[in-house]
Amino acid sequence: MCRLLLYKGKQPILLAHLLTNPAHSIINQSFDSRLRIDHRRPLNGDGFGVGWYDSEDQDKTHKPCIFTSVTPAWSNSNLVRLAEKIKSPLLFAHVRASTSGAVTEANCHPWNYGRIMWMHNGGIAQFEKIKRKLQNALPEELFLWVEGSTDSEWAFALFLSFLDNPSADTFDHQELKAAMLKTIAQLNEWAEEANITEPSLLNFAVTDGESVICVRYISSNTLEAASLYFSSGTRFECYRPGHYRMVKADRREDMVVVASEPLTFEEADWLTIPTNTVMVITPKLNVLLQPIKDQFYAVERGLEVKVGEDVARIPEPHAQMMAHHISQLTSPTRS
Amino acid sequence: MCRLLLYKGKQPILLAHLLTNPAHSIINQSFDSRLRIDHRRPLNGDGFGVGWYDSEDQDKTHKPCIFTSVTPAWSNSNLVRLAEKIKSPLLFAHVRASTSGAVTEANCHPWNYGRIMWMHNGGIAQFEKIKRKLQNALPEELFLWVEGSTDSEWAFALFLSFLDNPSADTFDHQELKAAMLKTIAQLNEWAEEANITEPSLLNFAVTDGESVICVRYISSNTLEAASLYFSSGTRFECYRPGHYRMVKADRREDMVVVASEPLTFEEADWLTIPTNTVMVITPKLNVLLQPIKDQFYAVERGLEVKVGEDVARIPEPHAQMMAHHISQLTSPTRS
Amino acid sequence: MCRLLLYKGKQPILLAHLLTNPAHSIINQSFDSRLRIDHRRPLNGDGFGVGWYDSEDQDKTHKPCIFTSVTPAWSNSNLVRLAEKIKSPLLFAHVRASTSGAVTEANCHPWNYGRIMWMHNGGIAQFEKIKRKLQNALPEELFLWVEGSTDSEWAFALFLSFLDNPSADTFDHQELKAAMLKTIAQLNEWAEEANITEPSLLNFAVTDGESVICVRYISSNTLEAASLYFSSGTRFECYRPGHYRMVKADRREDMVVVASEPLTFEEADWLTIPTNTVMVITPKLNVLLQPIKDQFYAVERGLEVKVGEDVARIPEPHAQMMAHHISQLTSPTRS
Amino acid sequence: MCRLLLYKGKQPILLAHLLTNPAHSIINQSFDSRLRIDHRRPLNGDGFGVGWYDSEDQDKTHKPCIFTSVTPAWSNSNLVRLAEKIKSPLLFAHVRASTSGAVTEANCHPWNYGRIMWMHNGGIAQFEKIKRKLQNALPEELFLWVEGSTDSEWAFALFLSFLDNPSADTFDHQELKAAMLKTIAQLNEWAEEANITEPSLLNFAVTDGESVICVRYISSNTLEAASLYFSSGTRFECYRPGHYRMVKADRREDMVVVASEPLTFEEADWLTIPTNTVMVITPKLNVLLQPIKDQFYAVERGLEVKVGEDVARIPEPHAQMMAHHISQLTSPTRS
Repeated sequence: MCRLLLYKGKQPILLAHLLTNPAHSIINQSFDSRLRIDHRRPLNGDGFGVGWYDSEDQDKTHKPCIFTSVTPAWSNSNLVRLAEKIKSPLLFAHVRASTSGAVTEANCHPWNYGRIMWMHNGGIAQFEKIKRKLQNALPEELFLWVEGSTDSEWAFALFLSFLDNPSADTFDHQELKAAMLKTIAQLNEWAEEANITEPSLLNFAVTDGESVICVRYISSNTLEAASLYFSSGTRFECYRPGHYRMVKADRREDMVVVASEPLTFEEADWLTIPTNTVMVITPKLNVLLQPIKDQFYAVERGLEVKVGEDVARIPEPHAQMMAHHISQLTSPTRS
Repeated sequence: MCRLLLYKGKQPILLAHLLTNPAHSIINQSFDSRLRIDHRRPLNGDGFGVGWYDSEDQDKTHKPCIFTSVTPAWSNSNLVRLAEKIKSPLLFAHVRASTSGAVTEANCHPWNYGRIMWMHNGGIAQFEKIKRKLQNALPEELFLWVEGSTDSEWAFALFLSFLDNPSADTFDHQELKAAMLKTIAQLNEWAEEANITEPSLLNFAVTDGESVICVRYISSNTLEAASLYFSSGTRFECYRPGHYRMVKADRREDMVVVASEPLTFEEADWLTIPTNTVMVITPKLNVLLQPIKDQFYAVERGLEVKVGEDVARIPEPHAQMMAHHISQLTSPTRS
Repeated sequence: MCRLLLYKGKQPILLAHLLTNPAHSIINQSFDSRLRIDHRRPLNGDGFGVGWYDSEDQDKTHKPCIFTSVTPAWSNSNLVRLAEKIKSPLLFAHVRASTSGAVTEANCHPWNYGRIMWMHNGGIAQFEKIKRKLQNALPEELFLWVEGSTDSEWAFALFLSFLDNPSADTFDHQELKAAMLKTIAQLNEWAEEANITEPSLLNFAVTDGESVICVRYISSNTLEAASLYFSSGTRFECYRPGHYRMVKADRREDMVVVASEPLTFEEADWLTIPTNTVMVITPKLNVLLQPIKDQFYAVERGLEVKVGEDVARIPEPHAQMMAHHISQLTSPTRS
Repeated sequence: MCRLLLYKGKQPILLAHLLTNPAHSIINQSFDSRLRIDHRRPLNGDGFGVGWYDSEDQDKTHKPCIFTSVTPAWSNSNLVRLAEKIKSPLLFAHVRASTSGAVTEANCHPWNYGRIMWMHNGGIAQFEKIKRKLQNALPEELFLWVEGSTDSEWAFALFLSFLDNPSADTFDHQELKAAMLKTIAQLNEWAEEANITEPSLLNFAVTDGESVICVRYISSNTLEAASLYFSSGTRFECYRPGHYRMVKADRREDMVVVASEPLTFEEADWLTIPTNTVMVITPKLNVLLQPIKDQFYAVERGLEVKVGEDVARIPEPHAQMMAHHISQLTSPTRS
């Protein structure tokens, strides 16, 4: 099982504050992970990747820069040095524990197609049974574009095929969200046709450099999806070496962080994204959480919240705060 | 353009004698190559691979052991050390200059499927135009088996699809040869359907651990295929550090070496395999060279012979010797 | 903290039986380790190495072949493939969690100097305080020979400096043992001169291809050294996929395995090498265990035995069996 | 023989314009080099490195960011992607063909010590004969700081030992130049003591993020040093894909490029730095070229100028222009 992290903020953040400094950063998670579903493969040492957009982007290409490596993230001195220099207002990061696909750079998340960037935490169940259908459903350009051999990259190609023009200069976040939901629906349909009953874990994240869409999803009515949390606030503050907290000054929401596991030890910083939910972060940083009401929707499942291993059950006030918080976040937005 | 080498002998040979010791070994060729067609990419530093069969094979799996690396062959200390220890009676080696497919281990030749091993020097012209057809022509098992993204590996899958049972325990060299010729014919057919006129360079080699089939082929009536030479004799002797020669004692043919470029500086050691020829080395080391008489067959082209850059023209006696040699090699065989 | 394994047997063993097949092999230990002292760095993903001697060694060089990699052992497909083919009667293997020295191949254990091979599990405390003294104590040849930057490789150079002729063709195991003890004594002396009170963990193993010397050692009177176990028997048998046991037929001792952690789940297979003990395996497979009676010798510490996390205390009969076993193995000796 | 490149400009430049876009960039030089002295090792595929300072450096650390890799520069997709995003006003780049030291990241140039960055093209003759003296001349801190095994990194440590405080926040370019000349003098003195007559090739470059000092030097009265060129102007312009030229508008000198081989095909863009010359680029971009008048100084050698292989002899006017240019560049400064 992999780990993912994404950041979108009004201000660029130094990559080190997210990737390397926090004691429980995605890099450290890669060898000390507590919240995993899959315990057979106990760490994420099969490569990593980080992709980010420029603060300025003077060239107006709006293409992300992607740095990947098949060596473990924690011993990659290039990553450590780059993270101490590079700032970005929009960042994806991923550490990998290979479930399908060899350990090669072509199989490291995230990938980008023009300005669109994608990563995946989870796995498409029995992907081999639908691989051919998926490939044959793709237009030539996208079929030929895939370089690696993972289910995740093919799912990205499928997503791209649901966009009017994947090479466009601008995208509406509604179109991105719609394509994401179509991707999930299509994968579900093929799984059904192939009589696959094992559930797929589909935590996808995609961005065009402006909006971010991510889903916490499992094709099951009863199981929980792989964990996914988010935090928002005014700034991400280091109060002690390795220890960070999200500061909310004046209730302004200047940054959003989404992660497989909480980056900080402050329980109150993190809210669980409920299973089978799509999250939209608009260019102006409004956040919308919506349940995905398909055949795998289950009312009672959506509200369970877990943060950290010590917290078996989020106390009621917290859950309410979360509900309040979400409504607060999402009520004024047009998305 | 890549470089390939293969050895089949009655006795196992230390890999170093072929791979690392000769001054003009395939490793040294990787940074000092004189006979290439494609001068745009002047060296082969995009990975290498070597595959070999055990002398003994006590486990009777008959599967080759394959060692690949994406770092340049010449600086790979593991390769140097292994080559000084491992002996094999049947060896494939390949250095790569990427023409299609990323530089990843999954894209390094040779590949094996069970006991069958394959490598390719050249390229399928405009492969992207026939990639989908090729994939859809494959049975599920072979379609899913491919890990990398090169034309060469997909061509191997196509070859395997022409075998009765690619997982069989034994193969007849006639079946292997037939599958090889069908592979070329099928690629030509698809190229024609896709209106591809650019010629493909199809120097393929395949073995089941017993027989070896290799072709020097180009889908053109006028151009020469990528170079391919062979040498045969009793032993491969080092007479000075870095300098080897093929010794023929008692006219016995105890070993055959096939290579993109001569391994020795002894002109007489090497015979050109004519363009558009299939070569069969039987389990008992009989060698058969046969022209491939398809739409790209051109009588006059078959006999030109070039060895080394200093030799513009093989003198007549040598060419006759070659013809004699070939007939001598092949006369007693039933193939 | 690293992990090491060594095998010496009358018969060559397929590397896979030790390295890749056992569920708790050194490779799997590298991401699921239970018996470590140092919990700060929870896994061994910073490279690995394996070195082995030929069964036959027709060239009579008696030099080991060493294969190292900076990528994690568990995802190295070359290692997996080589382990399934190569047999050896004498093997060292090591997975590394870097404590000093960058993650480079030059810093991967084991190293060889001619026919002598060395590896180390542990660390020399505050090595930087004695590094210069160590270097200046070396003859020019050994000073210049070191390629990497680890304390372990410099300790090997120091060991070599205590041999009459480190390039000799044969060594007596007494000489090797004496050099090992001098190495430890010298490191202790320099540590004292530099006022280093932090204990060094010095589990060293060395072989000339015939004898093996290894020590479980800590420069402390009270603490335990890093764990080290051994097992001996007639054959190492796989009774279920991933599950092995040491079989002792007719009480013959045809093989000895030494490892940081037990390779099998059979408690009775493994005996602890007591802290501050030197172990000698002679060319004929006699095993000698001797306490190192220097300033860090502590009588009561030597007999504690732990195998596996579930076994807080080896039951009395087992400890007696161990004592018996050792005396039986070592009867001509005292230990 | 390696290749180096450095850029200092009033404006930051996109790394791609120097590293990856030019048809004859340092990356392409790494497999198509025409001006080398050492033809035994015909390419630079043994790793590369690039180090740069931030345009802004909001953290005021003034430490460069360094990216190194042991895979060949030309196939490193991370390098290609980073070069298309990162801008810097001061950049060092290096491709390596190993002459001493293993192919590991620790041996890739450039290195930095705090804000000081260093690289080397060439080699210290018979370095093993002076290595111990050099190490013993270093203060403890610098002795322990070296991670790799190359002569180049040890020469950097020697250079640092000639600075009053290598960890200082600011440096005077006079101090840097003096330390550079002391480094060369000291290496010469040790070479003499060790009776080394083979000449050393000492093209060093160093910067503190403000000034740049580089030398083209050989410890010989008669031979030429490894090539070194420079170009200065207002902007580095791409007039055709892969083709660049240095534009000099209003005679303003807004950037200086120094390189082992010319980056452009415009002969007039490049001036040879004469053998045994020290070049200083001040923080304000004044350029000073001074002969190094030690025992290896030879008047007549200093003026030869070669640019490109087609130009056997720079015509007189050009040489005068160079002299003029240099005086022009350097007259207002004393530096």
